[in-house]
Amino acid sequence: MAQRVLVLGGDGYLGWPTAMAFSRAGHRVAVVDNFAKRQWELELGVRPLFAIPTLHERIRAWREVAENEIELFVGDLTDYAFVESVIDDFRPDTVVHYGEQPSAPYSMIDARHAAYTQANNVVGTLNLLFAMRDVSPETHLVKLGTMGEYGTPDIDIEEGYLTVDHNGRRHTFLYPKTPGSIYHLSKVHDSHNIHFATRIWSLRATDLHQGVVYGVETDETALDPRLATSFHYDEVFGTALNRFCAEAAVDFPLTVYGKGGQTRGYLNIRDTIQCVQLAAAHPAEAGELRVYNQFTEQFTVLELARRVKAAGEHLGWSVAMDHTSNPRKEAEEHYYNAVHSKLLELGLRPHLLSEELIDTMLLKIAEERERIDRSVFVQHVRWVPKALEAVGPGRATNRASSRA
Amino acid sequence: MAQRVLVLGGDGYLGWPTAMAFSRAGHRVAVVDNFAKRQWELELGVRPLFAIPTLHERIRAWREVAENEIELFVGDLTDYAFVESVIDDFRPDTVVHYGEQPSAPYSMIDARHAAYTQANNVVGTLNLLFAMRDVSPETHLVKLGTMGEYGTPDIDIEEGYLTVDHNGRRHTFLYPKTPGSIYHLSKVHDSHNIHFATRIWSLRATDLHQGVVYGVETDETALDPRLATSFHYDEVFGTALNRFCAEAAVDFPLTVYGKGGQTRGYLNIRDTIQCVQLAAAHPAEAGELRVYNQFTEQFTVLELARRVKAAGEHLGWSVAMDHTSNPRKEAEEHYYNAVHSKLLELGLRPHLLSEELIDTMLLKIAEERERIDRSVFVQHVRWVPKALEAVGPGRATNRASSRA
Repeated sequence: MAQRVLVLGGDGYLGWPTAMAFSRAGHRVAVVDNFAKRQWELELGVRPLFAIPTLHERIRAWREVAENEIELFVGDLTDYAFVESVIDDFRPDTVVHYGEQPSAPYSMIDARHAAYTQANNVVGTLNLLFAMRDVSPETHLVKLGTMGEYGTPDIDIEEGYLTVDHNGRRHTFLYPKTPGSIYHLSKVHDSHNIHFATRIWSLRATDLHQGVVYGVETDETALDPRLATSFHYDEVFGTALNRFCAEAAVDFPLTVYGKGGQTRGYLNIRDTIQCVQLAAAHPAEAGELRVYNQFTEQFTVLELARRVKAAGEHLGWSVAMDHTSNPRKEAEEHYYNAVHSKLLELGLRPHLLSEELIDTMLLKIAEERERIDRSVFVQHVRWVPKALEAVGPGRATNRASSRA
Repeated sequence: MAQRVLVLGGDGYLGWPTAMAFSRAGHRVAVVDNFAKRQWELELGVRPLFAIPTLHERIRAWREVAENEIELFVGDLTDYAFVESVIDDFRPDTVVHYGEQPSAPYSMIDARHAAYTQANNVVGTLNLLFAMRDVSPETHLVKLGTMGEYGTPDIDIEEGYLTVDHNGRRHTFLYPKTPGSIYHLSKVHDSHNIHFATRIWSLRATDLHQGVVYGVETDETALDPRLATSFHYDEVFGTALNRFCAEAAVDFPLTVYGKGGQTRGYLNIRDTIQCVQLAAAHPAEAGELRVYNQFTEQFTVLELARRVKAAGEHLGWSVAMDHTSNPRKEAEEHYYNAVHSKLLELGLRPHLLSEELIDTMLLKIAEERERIDRSVFVQHVRWVPKALEAVGPGRATNRASSRA
């Protein structure tokens, strides 16, 4: 059944392909963006691998290629009047919400970037919840969260909720979260706010706790070069596999952080599209917060690097690996077992990470080899500032060390 | 041992008495405030029961009465440069952090007040954590959280953490939170951010999950009328018992929300002071987030109202009770059993809620009877807007209801 689908963050890596996919499937689609990501790129001096036209140009290209309209609202989700006017104008059946600052390293640069990330993400989502409440309470929110909200607990990660038996009584909680960055914390805050909005105002929401996404193209981006998505390979916006592939393409040693035993859930960008479509097609009930763990396979970082190395060598490239010091503070070996069955039950057919798929990525990336900036592979953003780390656990008291 | 104690929110109901108590006990004390609370009072047209001098005047009065200095920094915690300069100048051993928007109804007024509350509270605390990290990493943060972070789960509320056995493995989580307002959510966000700062940067923090505070005076406020604290009895800033006492003093029916079966933890303002002093005297280890449930007794709202009625009648007053419609969305009958033993183990000697104590409160409040504004007892801020409530669970779809 055709829906009105509003995609927040429609200029982004996942937002733009999502908008095209819904449009091609016959839904009426509008996108919202404030182009903040393009500002962050300028700030950091990085750019996407493929040259990305303006969003206006991409929408015109889509009209030409697919003979479909995508509507555009330009504005900032932290501006409540803007958010309410968009919801009121477009009356979405489904809001797909990617409109947040999505990078953990960006959030860890300093106090200003930390405050910006949390205020931007939390206030944007709050504004959306209030606008839904007051203007369009039947709208289904499909929110992109992250598997990183859970952290790496010593027990199995369930799909959103945890039932606890304690002193002879039982209660089901939102699964408790122990995230590993200021950005991941912002998503945890969102989850609690969305849970509140479903409990108190009976809104409908699905929170997609997504794993790490990889991939350069979808069925729609492949239709025309002007429809390419914003693929990043730098330390701040590039996710592990994407970065490794770009490194391999320019004979740069793969930057494995520390031991590489960090296990995470991963998925192909094509599966992100599938999952979001499945979520939209199966709206939550009024008052329900549905949570799906959205990934298809678990890998250690080292396993990913080994697969990229093998695929590269299969193409005749020489691929080295470098265990750089880990800029993050995280367990490099840990228990990890996360349930991810609900989306499979809804019909998700995963694109798993085969050598063939990596080969395809490598070749596609290699076409743009001359655009790759090797300087952005090196990590500069550290979770613990060097000054603090150097003094270590036996550091002097603040008075003694700083007043001296 | 004398400490440097920095009290954030030093102009407030709890902040000012806390500052005086530490000062009197021989510590070096500084206070921070931006007087936001006095702006909110103007916005809502409410004022504290006692006439409160400016903070500068109170500090001069304290110098005169106690022959002690309290230093003052005026500024906003959401301004990182200000926060860092205060931490750098004063080099606190302990920061007592009351500097947040503290009212659940205020946070529920509309989208703007919700966003303000969360951004103000979360960013202020984030700035503090970064300033501690970069300037004074041995400082002990004593943060005022709230018992309201837990909500009302069907199992016992433990003191900060919950150990879960699941599928043959075990993990200890921060106790999962299910708060009941946008304000309480902001405190949950703070708790997660503070937990991160202790885990990743090895900061020291104690999170005081405080119950509902009541009382009009402390040992220090009683020394001189100019040292009175900012006591509120209105629907937005007045807590349950304080509001009931003010209502009784002007023969206004006690405003019991709904059935009155809502159970919460309560404590006397004198015990807040004791608890904060105990927390400061027993700093958390580096890397530790200590959590205390800070209250002394559990009551239902109805039980509180009955006690105020009995005490008032004992004074010869006639006291009526009115079960008004509940402006909040909350369970009016529920399981509630919250552990609160750690502060008792540290030496807390509770001032329990006796009829004598209520009599004293009633008489003290009655002295200012002519300043009491009866119009502010009535609740206007509703958790669920009337429009949404009216349509109810069987409401029409957004398209049908709003496009028609």
